[in-house]
Amino acid sequence: MRTVFWENNELKMIDQRILPARFEVRSYRGHQEVARAITAMVVRGAPAIGAAAAFGLALAANESKSSAPDDLLNDLRASAETLKAARPTAVNLAWAVDRLMQAACSVKGSADDVRKVVLDEAQKLADEDVQINQRMAEHGAALIEDGDTIIHHCNTGALATVDWGTALGVIRTAHEQGKKIHVLVDETRPRLQGARLTAWELEQYGIPYEIISDNMSGYFLKAGMAQKVFFGADRVAANGDVANKIGSYMLALAAHDNNVPVYSVVPTSTVDLSLAHGGLIPIEERDPDEVLGIQFHGEPIAPKNARARNPAFDVTPNRLLSGIVTENGVVYPPFDVNLKKVVR
Amino acid sequence: MRTVFWENNELKMIDQRILPARFEVRSYRGHQEVARAITAMVVRGAPAIGAAAAFGLALAANESKSSAPDDLLNDLRASAETLKAARPTAVNLAWAVDRLMQAACSVKGSADDVRKVVLDEAQKLADEDVQINQRMAEHGAALIEDGDTIIHHCNTGALATVDWGTALGVIRTAHEQGKKIHVLVDETRPRLQGARLTAWELEQYGIPYEIISDNMSGYFLKAGMAQKVFFGADRVAANGDVANKIGSYMLALAAHDNNVPVYSVVPTSTVDLSLAHGGLIPIEERDPDEVLGIQFHGEPIAPKNARARNPAFDVTPNRLLSGIVTENGVVYPPFDVNLKKVVR
Repeated sequence: MRTVFWENNELKMIDQRILPARFEVRSYRGHQEVARAITAMVVRGAPAIGAAAAFGLALAANESKSSAPDDLLNDLRASAETLKAARPTAVNLAWAVDRLMQAACSVKGSADDVRKVVLDEAQKLADEDVQINQRMAEHGAALIEDGDTIIHHCNTGALATVDWGTALGVIRTAHEQGKKIHVLVDETRPRLQGARLTAWELEQYGIPYEIISDNMSGYFLKAGMAQKVFFGADRVAANGDVANKIGSYMLALAAHDNNVPVYSVVPTSTVDLSLAHGGLIPIEERDPDEVLGIQFHGEPIAPKNARARNPAFDVTPNRLLSGIVTENGVVYPPFDVNLKKVVR
Repeated sequence: MRTVFWENNELKMIDQRILPARFEVRSYRGHQEVARAITAMVVRGAPAIGAAAAFGLALAANESKSSAPDDLLNDLRASAETLKAARPTAVNLAWAVDRLMQAACSVKGSADDVRKVVLDEAQKLADEDVQINQRMAEHGAALIEDGDTIIHHCNTGALATVDWGTALGVIRTAHEQGKKIHVLVDETRPRLQGARLTAWELEQYGIPYEIISDNMSGYFLKAGMAQKVFFGADRVAANGDVANKIGSYMLALAAHDNNVPVYSVVPTSTVDLSLAHGGLIPIEERDPDEVLGIQFHGEPIAPKNARARNPAFDVTPNRLLSGIVTENGVVYPPFDVNLKKVVR
């Protein structure tokens, strides 16, 4: 089963807010619902929200009552803005919507022809995501040695994509190649995508793992107990600075301080050559209740009325990365020179 | 009220496992109970567990039925071992117990004279802790400038000591001096001493704060939104390497990467000149259930039977520290030369 898929004229998505406690698939019939689901993180992970937005635009095409192609395109433009505004940091969202709009605008035919092209292009984008992940996984798996312990941040598996995964896809492929791997799973506060989702996936793949608090990776790196760090990315700037889930920067710093290589695994759709460096990437700050809303022994973790901050991403400077794994190969420094060679 | 105090021949301690949900004071009549309470973290914080162990030995003196001083001393030696074994990393525990044993062994008199000396010395140690904290706070407050935002890790306040606090005592004194301070409170996974205890204390002192996940401090440091980092320590080696609550190392790395000064605030009883460097400090690994036992939206955060690791401390290398604040002044690098000048 895919994380994001089209069935009976509906978009279906695994609800990632409630895993691993419950596995539920939700159905969506309107693009505004899809935008809200992306904001609420029913679906998350840069490639997955790209695919969700693509199918969201296909829903918008069906929702529009316009019979003239130009009227439909205008409706789609408004829906595209709604979908793109659902989350600001991952560039895949805008990339997917823009790709579909381009396909829609190139249609010479009826409104229904446009509707068909939008859905076909969304389906094509989703199918390609799986193939791209598998190509990334092949390139990345070559970096993993038999016996490696790998620290992994957030969730970058099948749940973060349409299927297979980016960084976790690399680990999965290396495991299928017979390499013995152990994964230290950063729990990934505040929303615990590591503990909830990555551990759940690793259980299914039969890959041994242990969950750690995010602040523990420095301990294991310093102790020589981890040989590689792998994570995904939500947006890569032209110079190789990588915006990824909050905590990636500190993890990369700790790895770098102990000469442990750090790899970011991304489809080239995550590379944004229009931004010169990571300081230009918009960083989403989310509801503080995500930080305060966990329970310790069933009780609140903070005083009533406590305040919190919740930046959802940070930027890992290119100097801390050993390589960026894409579907077109592993990119090494200098990233400002080499990244543009793989983005087609 | 003190965190750890003697009343009616009992040791009383604020139960820090259930704050801020409930404020409860527990009573202890036996040293084994006290050792268990230290292990279970009813009381935590290096100076506070030192004082708790000291009063625990006073309880042991009362528990012993020996009427000959030598027999009582033998009983006390066994109890001392039990108390010292309760937690391995913070040296204050052994320091306090050893200090009381030395006082006990120097008594020339009856068993009851020994009992009186042990209790008097425990009380003296507890009283001194408050004075020492206030002296550290004066030295440390001079490092804080009006308008500073300070990142603080774990809890180092009144709850971590007999009263006032180490790093948080510094912040409290600077606040009382009229300096405008904002504190970014690391929640401090896995046991959330920052969100639960430090935020609770800051509410009472009227010091503005915001809680962040541990993995967010790099973001705020890189954004130039924090000017200082303060934390305590559980053991300082002769070269200035500092063992402190897990996550301190990654926080110090992130501060160092952004030229933000990092200070560890410790009574000299936390300095262990017998250890040449931090690699020799024993690091406690605690029950993985502390990592797995929080709830997200009321549900478990990990798959059933998930495994986890739980090292409770890490070592921040001396190169990442700007200074070590003690009751005898601020120690600057080279720490291997300057630390021994303040330890008396």
